[in-house]
Amino acid sequence: MINVTKTFLPTLEEYNSYVKRAWDKVWLTNRGELTLELEDKLKNHLAVNHIIITNNGTIPIQIALKLFGNGGEIITTPFSYVATSAAIVWENCKPVFVDIHPEYLTIDETKIEEAITSKTTAILATHVFGNPCHITAIESIASKYNLKVIYDAAHCFGVNYNNQSIFNYGDVSTCSFHATKIFHTGEGGALFCNDQNIYDKLYYSHNFGHNGPLDFHGLGINAKVSELQSAIGLAVFDHIDTIFSERKKVVEFYNSQLNFTNLKPLKIRENTEWNYSYYPVVFDSEATLLEIQKELQSENIFPRRYFYPSLNTINYIKGAKMPISESVASRILCLPLYVGLPTSDLKRITSIINKIIC
Amino acid sequence: MINVTKTFLPTLEEYNSYVKRAWDKVWLTNRGELTLELEDKLKNHLAVNHIIITNNGTIPIQIALKLFGNGGEIITTPFSYVATSAAIVWENCKPVFVDIHPEYLTIDETKIEEAITSKTTAILATHVFGNPCHITAIESIASKYNLKVIYDAAHCFGVNYNNQSIFNYGDVSTCSFHATKIFHTGEGGALFCNDQNIYDKLYYSHNFGHNGPLDFHGLGINAKVSELQSAIGLAVFDHIDTIFSERKKVVEFYNSQLNFTNLKPLKIRENTEWNYSYYPVVFDSEATLLEIQKELQSENIFPRRYFYPSLNTINYIKGAKMPISESVASRILCLPLYVGLPTSDLKRITSIINKIIC
Repeated sequence: MINVTKTFLPTLEEYNSYVKRAWDKVWLTNRGELTLELEDKLKNHLAVNHIIITNNGTIPIQIALKLFGNGGEIITTPFSYVATSAAIVWENCKPVFVDIHPEYLTIDETKIEEAITSKTTAILATHVFGNPCHITAIESIASKYNLKVIYDAAHCFGVNYNNQSIFNYGDVSTCSFHATKIFHTGEGGALFCNDQNIYDKLYYSHNFGHNGPLDFHGLGINAKVSELQSAIGLAVFDHIDTIFSERKKVVEFYNSQLNFTNLKPLKIRENTEWNYSYYPVVFDSEATLLEIQKELQSENIFPRRYFYPSLNTINYIKGAKMPISESVASRILCLPLYVGLPTSDLKRITSIINKIIC
Repeated sequence: MINVTKTFLPTLEEYNSYVKRAWDKVWLTNRGELTLELEDKLKNHLAVNHIIITNNGTIPIQIALKLFGNGGEIITTPFSYVATSAAIVWENCKPVFVDIHPEYLTIDETKIEEAITSKTTAILATHVFGNPCHITAIESIASKYNLKVIYDAAHCFGVNYNNQSIFNYGDVSTCSFHATKIFHTGEGGALFCNDQNIYDKLYYSHNFGHNGPLDFHGLGINAKVSELQSAIGLAVFDHIDTIFSERKKVVEFYNSQLNFTNLKPLKIRENTEWNYSYYPVVFDSEATLLEIQKELQSENIFPRRYFYPSLNTINYIKGAKMPISESVASRILCLPLYVGLPTSDLKRITSIINKIIC
């Protein structure tokens, strides 16, 4: 069976070489040495100012919204995983959707200003599939209206934009280290920021506001990652160059073999070093998508309708109509992309797709 | 160094015998087979109707409050770990404290009714140190005022009350499987309930509301536990009888050797099979506590001021005065209690305490 993704696993021996240290220290959580080491390695590798590893990729968005949302309206994208909108609603804010760019698939920065009201407190935009939003325009709007910017950078491990890590942009950026991600900790995620003051607030927020065992800085919750998760993160990180180069090969295969006459690939934004995180293709109609999906499934190949449905249409949200996002969401399919996907399978996938769309 | 607690670790080989299955399946999260097996084992062992294992012990309280709190006032105890109050505030509800019983240390059920207003939506009470609240009285009040009951049963693994698991009481009970707990998954926790309808809501809430990959039941968030955590849970569970019997020996040593003339132990509620989760002692004054703490520390023994401060006094909460809780919190110390704590160390601890208080 070929799924849209497959978790990259180091060997069990490699995992053990790290997790053994948790046994030696008899220490399984609460920012143990493996977590600190992983934070340090990622900080250096990504060249970011501040990082806090968390227990999943959603809690960082929740924490950022708790600090900056103030129960207000959050300008956001309808084209993202449900976590983006769910975090807004969960944190008692209101998602206000702005439609997406039809090719970059990120929030359409030219439509943000008209969505801002006196209740708007922040912009939460997703660098979807690792493709950067129009960061310059967004920062300029945020500055003009005194809004905070949170980037859901769940898909962005390893993305550089304008020669630096994409995590360096926004007041806060978040990432997911879910098992299906390029870099992962099984379940996990991270908070990134540049500002020391914001870092302090994020840090306290992720551990109950503790300032030592008996004192509290303020409100906080439990977003701590376990040492078991950090251990696999360290073991995965040892393979990070291979992971990128192998994924790049799959992407290049699709790029060279798919017939793009009736098929649109993701348009990567200028000045981006992309990370080969997903391979989305947009068909001319949902009917074509369903036909291809059916044909692939008959060969035990399971691409994924990422992201469907458009978040403004979800039952508990019911946002305004978002024609572009709804249209793209109905026609987009992410093709299998992972380390170890054999060329023979890639050939089967591309030939099935090419046969149907041509 | 002797800390208040020490994580129980199965051998690395025992852990590997479980975690290997995650490798074999290439499956690290999203309710994998280890998580399902652990849920099944715990469900049978505890004889409970429904269990959902989560990524920590706080998110279950948050989920229960999201379902039942409705942004209202939550009647709660000031004597608990900060997570209890933090979850209330985080979930946009208001904690309304009710003082505790001076001996059981649980919420004083006789004072609950006077704290109820038209805004009260739920009671969130902690079975502190595994000691049951006055469940009958609380259920009766809840029924009279149509309130939901959430039990923070973080400390309660293995506690039976009136011949059944304490997790069976309340609309929802929560537990912590933090590394410091009797049974643990490194970081982790669980939701328990009896009602199928509530279970469905809890279940969807803990996984983004997903009803299959493309449909949603409603609002949800990420509370999923990783297979790495469930693997250690399974390995710890294999030792559960030893864990209880070894902890019981430590408790019995303290019970038999401490001089209780000027020292109060926890009074366990009637009809309770307790779990030897903590060994709290209440001194006549904070000065005595500090003197004993200092003396123990000079011998590299670190008991813990659980729970201090009284939650109504925390800076971001500022609840009404709670004389009993504040007084107890200033005078209570949890003594070291874990599997493998040598009798020689126990003797040192009890003799230091007895010397000072007599």
